[in-house]
Amino acid sequence: MKQITGDLLEKVRATSPLIHNITNFVVMNSTANILLAAGASPVMAHAPEEVEEMTGLADALVLNIGTLQSDWVVSMILAGKAANRKGIPVVLDPVGAGATKFRTDTVKHIMDEVDISVLRGNASEIFSLAWADIRTRGVDTSLAVTPDMIHDAKKLAVKLGCILAVSGPEDLVTDGRQVFQIANGHPLMTKVTGIGCGLSAVTGAFCARADGDLVSATAASLGYYGLCGDLAARVSRKPGGFFTAFLDTLYALSSQDIEGSLNVHPV
Amino acid sequence: MKQITGDLLEKVRATSPLIHNITNFVVMNSTANILLAAGASPVMAHAPEEVEEMTGLADALVLNIGTLQSDWVVSMILAGKAANRKGIPVVLDPVGAGATKFRTDTVKHIMDEVDISVLRGNASEIFSLAWADIRTRGVDTSLAVTPDMIHDAKKLAVKLGCILAVSGPEDLVTDGRQVFQIANGHPLMTKVTGIGCGLSAVTGAFCARADGDLVSATAASLGYYGLCGDLAARVSRKPGGFFTAFLDTLYALSSQDIEGSLNVHPV
Amino acid sequence: MKQITGDLLEKVRATSPLIHNITNFVVMNSTANILLAAGASPVMAHAPEEVEEMTGLADALVLNIGTLQSDWVVSMILAGKAANRKGIPVVLDPVGAGATKFRTDTVKHIMDEVDISVLRGNASEIFSLAWADIRTRGVDTSLAVTPDMIHDAKKLAVKLGCILAVSGPEDLVTDGRQVFQIANGHPLMTKVTGIGCGLSAVTGAFCARADGDLVSATAASLGYYGLCGDLAARVSRKPGGFFTAFLDTLYALSSQDIEGSLNVHPV
Repeated sequence: MKQITGDLLEKVRATSPLIHNITNFVVMNSTANILLAAGASPVMAHAPEEVEEMTGLADALVLNIGTLQSDWVVSMILAGKAANRKGIPVVLDPVGAGATKFRTDTVKHIMDEVDISVLRGNASEIFSLAWADIRTRGVDTSLAVTPDMIHDAKKLAVKLGCILAVSGPEDLVTDGRQVFQIANGHPLMTKVTGIGCGLSAVTGAFCARADGDLVSATAASLGYYGLCGDLAARVSRKPGGFFTAFLDTLYALSSQDIEGSLNVHPV
Repeated sequence: MKQITGDLLEKVRATSPLIHNITNFVVMNSTANILLAAGASPVMAHAPEEVEEMTGLADALVLNIGTLQSDWVVSMILAGKAANRKGIPVVLDPVGAGATKFRTDTVKHIMDEVDISVLRGNASEIFSLAWADIRTRGVDTSLAVTPDMIHDAKKLAVKLGCILAVSGPEDLVTDGRQVFQIANGHPLMTKVTGIGCGLSAVTGAFCARADGDLVSATAASLGYYGLCGDLAARVSRKPGGFFTAFLDTLYALSSQDIEGSLNVHPV
Repeated sequence: MKQITGDLLEKVRATSPLIHNITNFVVMNSTANILLAAGASPVMAHAPEEVEEMTGLADALVLNIGTLQSDWVVSMILAGKAANRKGIPVVLDPVGAGATKFRTDTVKHIMDEVDISVLRGNASEIFSLAWADIRTRGVDTSLAVTPDMIHDAKKLAVKLGCILAVSGPEDLVTDGRQVFQIANGHPLMTKVTGIGCGLSAVTGAFCARADGDLVSATAASLGYYGLCGDLAARVSRKPGGFFTAFLDTLYALSSQDIEGSLNVHPV
């Protein structure tokens, strides 16, 4: 995975894939900065008049349901269908799924209408789509990765027909057959808003340059991102300084850093 | 107040109260980061389909009328009524009240419909609700604290039936009977957008853990926040570095810092 | 231009012009912080109920069509007409013009209804208003400045009846008669979102204090801004640290810095 991750990062930096984001108000700025630091090119557009045309220019589409409102869902579906027609990856971040019926229902509605390539969220958000009795507390709940979770994630990936990227103290990526576990990442990443949403966008950028193997590209993006968190925490152990260092590390991470510290493994 | 402030900060850090914010587009990101740095857990949600359910999960509700639009007011009132039914604190930040009729009228409309626990703003915003001849210039005007202002604030707190937290070079907190004056804080706090809005959210977090005495909790939150500004200004005297240091200080402030430099006193 | 730039910067810092922004969700926070660092006073308001009243309090109006939606265009035109009646400068940032028909058409529609003082964007955005065959890729495309571009910009400025401020590796300002070229600025400015949008707002602040000569004021604002980018890149060569240093430099730039390194020249 070290070679794949380094190669994809170089491709993103060299070719700046255009990532069309329909995302929430809290993280629009940080998501754009995270994509720029990673080497991609962000655009945010949500008006029904233009989303299909904008998706037509893009290399990947990232949908995110934080600060959800109903008229934006219409645009998400228009853009999602345009992405499907064009054959570019679509990443869905189900922020707060399980917390309210509106969020959970909206994720299901989007997934009925749009072929999602990767569903990226924390465990409670992802599994809220499988079991009705999980209750998200805000957007930062997480569960530990267990053999049961791997089993459940594989089943859910098959049922939903997409790759699942489950973030937590350890991350898990699966399409139902392949499974990767990612041990990079740092607890300070939960002390800055929008870090998870930014990851969904970076996953879109990696998938945009994946040449077909989206499972590896997704695992690579999570490894790259978590490793940047690890290294940023060596620069600052407080959230303000950490986020600055995190952007700097996304921008400057070297292949030696990847060689030395990436911790992504097939299970 | 040093003991109360330290105890409330520890409680917020230990229990991460969920703060439901319906706030403006400018400060959503900084408010979330400020709440996270202070130890609380932020959620932003404004759709009428979900605000009541989200407030039902929360420990406090924070309403903020910057970048106001009329359909959001409907959601603010739905959420406010849900918070009142649940008995959790509601903080209202009347950004720009007095600047336009729409803002002033909206504050009055919200206060007719929702029991507000704490009204937190600068002097011109707060007093625009009392006297029609005050005119806010943008959102950063402030007046000096005077004995007249204390007198007027007490009267206004009784009339409005809520705690007033008036920010300025010196801050004032009163419910009409008790009065606290807060001498912490630094002028650089006015050179970064959203610092005031972030304070309203932190006040929500402190009130969420207050065990009934919301006046002390409000004064404590202003003291904690201003003290973090004082200490951050020792790290950087320029706004970019200051905001980074401010987040770091919110996160790392110790009980020794509070013991040594908190400047909150009953009047 | 060094004298003019230094004088305008001092006037902005001394008098804090109120800049009314109707801008996009991605950059609201960074634009407010950039204006504050430059010494101006930002306000963001977009509701049709209040935009005219808010513009009536302001010293300049800045319109920006990133994250465009149709109901905001109504407010932009209401505010623009109010600014025209009051005689304050109006800056329009045509983010993404040329990328979608909706954006290009909206710029034209706004310019039919409102007298624009300064149109500030990158070359592909600006020239998309002249030639239909330019296609913006996202919002960060730029072309090199050439004699042809100067010729075309002068013609387009006359046709549109406003000052053009064309950002790129070198910047160009013209009203069709006078032409200024600005060689300040650093490539890292394209690695942080909202830097261009922030410039449009700062141009509004400089024009608000221009005493009639808006062409020089626009060139001065681009010189000041690019110089701050140059100096910030000496502090950090990575985007997180760079943006912090950029805000700090906007705040602290001295007349000696301008004397030593401003690179703005009439052509």
